[in-house]
Amino acid sequence: MAEVVRNKQVIFKDYINGFPKTSDMVLTSDATICLELPKNEGGVILTKNLYLSCDPYMRTCMQRPIDGWFIDAFTPGSPIIGHGVAKVLDSSHPDFKKGDLVWGLINWEEYSLIKDTSSLMKIQHTDVPLSYYTGILGMPGMTAYVGFYDICSPKKGETMFVSAASGAVGQLVGQLAKLYGCYVVGSAGSKEKVDLLKNKFGFDEAFNYKEEKDLDSALKRYFPNGIDIYFDNVGGKMLDAVLLNMNRHGRIAACGMVSQYTKLDEPESTHNLIMLIPKRVKMEGFVVFDYYHSYPKFLEMILPLIHEGKITYVEDTVEGLENAPTALIGLYSGLNVGKQVVAIARA
Amino acid sequence: MAEVVRNKQVIFKDYINGFPKTSDMVLTSDATICLELPKNEGGVILTKNLYLSCDPYMRTCMQRPIDGWFIDAFTPGSPIIGHGVAKVLDSSHPDFKKGDLVWGLINWEEYSLIKDTSSLMKIQHTDVPLSYYTGILGMPGMTAYVGFYDICSPKKGETMFVSAASGAVGQLVGQLAKLYGCYVVGSAGSKEKVDLLKNKFGFDEAFNYKEEKDLDSALKRYFPNGIDIYFDNVGGKMLDAVLLNMNRHGRIAACGMVSQYTKLDEPESTHNLIMLIPKRVKMEGFVVFDYYHSYPKFLEMILPLIHEGKITYVEDTVEGLENAPTALIGLYSGLNVGKQVVAIARA
Repeated sequence: MAEVVRNKQVIFKDYINGFPKTSDMVLTSDATICLELPKNEGGVILTKNLYLSCDPYMRTCMQRPIDGWFIDAFTPGSPIIGHGVAKVLDSSHPDFKKGDLVWGLINWEEYSLIKDTSSLMKIQHTDVPLSYYTGILGMPGMTAYVGFYDICSPKKGETMFVSAASGAVGQLVGQLAKLYGCYVVGSAGSKEKVDLLKNKFGFDEAFNYKEEKDLDSALKRYFPNGIDIYFDNVGGKMLDAVLLNMNRHGRIAACGMVSQYTKLDEPESTHNLIMLIPKRVKMEGFVVFDYYHSYPKFLEMILPLIHEGKITYVEDTVEGLENAPTALIGLYSGLNVGKQVVAIARA
Repeated sequence: MAEVVRNKQVIFKDYINGFPKTSDMVLTSDATICLELPKNEGGVILTKNLYLSCDPYMRTCMQRPIDGWFIDAFTPGSPIIGHGVAKVLDSSHPDFKKGDLVWGLINWEEYSLIKDTSSLMKIQHTDVPLSYYTGILGMPGMTAYVGFYDICSPKKGETMFVSAASGAVGQLVGQLAKLYGCYVVGSAGSKEKVDLLKNKFGFDEAFNYKEEKDLDSALKRYFPNGIDIYFDNVGGKMLDAVLLNMNRHGRIAACGMVSQYTKLDEPESTHNLIMLIPKRVKMEGFVVFDYYHSYPKFLEMILPLIHEGKITYVEDTVEGLENAPTALIGLYSGLNVGKQVVAIARA
């Protein structure tokens, strides 16, 4: 006889504009789920969800669908969808079996019946914290990896600037760049984060952008000889200031623009784009999903670095699905220190 | 006994902001020049200047020097400097001799004594109009060539949009793209230019941007399946509309931003830059000076195409140095139809 259990969910209420609020989501304990696979349906897995990832791009899914966007909008009345780590409770899919651990796109709920498994990757290495598969070993980690090596085309000795540098992607980008032999400066939004950048992640320099009246002057202070590579996680005013400080033949990896995600109806303007021309700068947008074929190669590179302590990773973990909305909203005012994770269950 | 002659000049008065005016330059007949090389000075050439080129970038030289710009500002009180074609009257430089024809940077004056010959290229092919070395066979032609092949990374069958498409660079870019097998649409600012694009240069489609209330809709009309390549000569509002219509993995060659050259103090804002990310677009600024080593290869490709009538080129020529200021200023309201040339002397 199949066990039917309560399945707490975080439901997306309706499309929003502007800054997101926790009240744009609602936690419900009304749903139940049958902990048994549906009969006569193959290719389905039942999961217990362990860790949820809060990622800046998720705000863009709370918007009415944007033409040409890289990921689907959330469905009003349905659970939030994000990256996460889950344990397979049962499976009729040939690639998964009971006990497997997976990461990929999952609903914000305690248990999921997943019919489209196309985003799921099996976790093969469990000698690291499982939550790492929401961060350094998951989507953000791969983003840092392809962004740095493929988009930034780095050369040893080059200068690199990383914004939102203590975040899920930024902290790894900076460390990869340091290992590669770049001079790396990061910006973040608090003294605590700046300390992390300098003392834990080994950035050469770091500054609190909120304390700078003039971002152009700040960048000139840290890059008296200009910026060769900008890893842009924020867009907006910082990008504008960076454009004035790029070196000739510099590269800008347009990874994210968190400063703009809450203003998509009236995006902030960029004024200094013309500087791409005299400075011969290449600015390239990218989406990590295009590069998942390189994931095994990435793991091969990053796992030893983690084990040897040459790369470190800071997570900001809240406990319980009920705290997930607050954790997500916190991203947009920079409340998280490091990768924002929600732990629903440990196993 | 050395002949001393009158040397008419167009003098740059002083740094400006905003839209340029003919009164920002002054024509003077006060100067004279000795038509003999200075004694005891090697490496100098004396030229009679034949054709002057009016190029959009020149407005940026009328501005107080801009940090990081790709070319020097004009010197108040000295002649305007631009590209042009000249005949060598005498030379103490081993690379040049009397009777040689050259193109490169020359002063806006009838005769010049040139000490820095580094920008000059010797003209080897005179079975084409000499004025072509201000356009299709000079800086703008090379710009179109490297912009299209090196920056746009074109593939046969791709869709391409060219702004300022009947201008010195645009008309060649469009024709190169057609020969390559792209679907090419151009924008320009008058019916006459649109006719040229469609009937003389063989663009697939063309439109008058001044008649379009909504550039986004116009682009959607001509590119129902999106734009793979944008060759940007204008920046500003057109770039913003293009960003909404780019295809995934598209490329934007940032060649020029003529719409912005008159507003450098308060550059127009770009709002849709965030679309670089979901669309995985690469936007690259470039300056033709970096590619002059490819000039012989370019000539080898382009001269036969001109001779066979497979490429055509339209010039808008005014006669006389005294009309050069009006010709230059006309660029910024699009009065020129084709490449703007000033003929000072025919030989």
